[in-house]
Amino acid sequence: MSSKRRLGFSRERELVRLFWKKGFACIRGPASGAKTRRIIYPDLIALKNGVIFIIEVKTRESKEPIYIDREKIIRLKEFARRAKGLPLIAIKFIGQTRWRFLHVNDLIETAKGNFKVDLEVLAKKGLTIEALEALASKTTKLNRFLFHSNSNSYS
Amino acid sequence: MSSKRRLGFSRERELVRLFWKKGFACIRGPASGAKTRRIIYPDLIALKNGVIFIIEVKTRESKEPIYIDREKIIRLKEFARRAKGLPLIAIKFIGQTRWRFLHVNDLIETAKGNFKVDLEVLAKKGLTIEALEALASKTTKLNRFLFHSNSNSYS
Repeated sequence: MSSKRRLGFSRERELVRLFWKKGFACIRGPASGAKTRRIIYPDLIALKNGVIFIIEVKTRESKEPIYIDREKIIRLKEFARRAKGLPLIAIKFIGQTRWRFLHVNDLIETAKGNFKVDLEVLAKKGLTIEALEALASKTTKLNRFLFHSNSNSYS
Repeated sequence: MSSKRRLGFSRERELVRLFWKKGFACIRGPASGAKTRRIIYPDLIALKNGVIFIIEVKTRESKEPIYIDREKIIRLKEFARRAKGLPLIAIKFIGQTRWRFLHVNDLIETAKGNFKVDLEVLAKKGLTIEALEALASKTTKLNRFLFHSNSNSYS
């Protein structure tokens, strides 16, 4: 395994531990080399109180836009559609202390059909892990219903 | 990797494909050798329509009771409690065509505090994958509520 990939895994594990600390259940998908990878796999699933977050993890050394392949986003959305979960990109720029979570529908489509995390959009719409906690805590039936309706309208 | 473990993985993958075919999103956890294993990991998570199944996979060559370590069941239940999902054991005896799913609360506790899949209980209470589909299709708010209440009373 390359040292870059190892570093990516160690950051995924960091995020798993953070979710765990916040009371979520969280699981990493199998390593990308796994045979089942061809089915469709997000990096992480975080679950709390019946609410499902489907997550692709992106970390970068420096604060610049992040580009993501179209295929990866299509797969993430398909996974989220089946699960009825929220498809999110988890972003951390090394040196910053906090993770931010951006809904895939807040990505910018590039001319070639791929997707971009725009830094201004991220600053404006990126959610903290506490915001995800709050979403998962709204357990009244009405809020669950609204939450799921929003998630549908995104997809 | 031992050939036995490889075989176990290939059966997990078979079950992942089956869930996928039935319209679920499904993810395998990382291999048990992974560092994060110490956190808590089920073998599979299957998701459909906002309903969460937390699954430990057990396959056997011959039709005999299956014993499962206490620690594994405690971890499975804790994962399910956080997620608000249903903790299940997926069972297949090789040569039989169908998987059966048993709720962890239908396991029998042994004198040593471990757990056992009893074959009579399995025949009586084991769910088919179609039964899991049906549970995940009950999307009215009332049914969701009932479903989650049952799941709570089990834990």
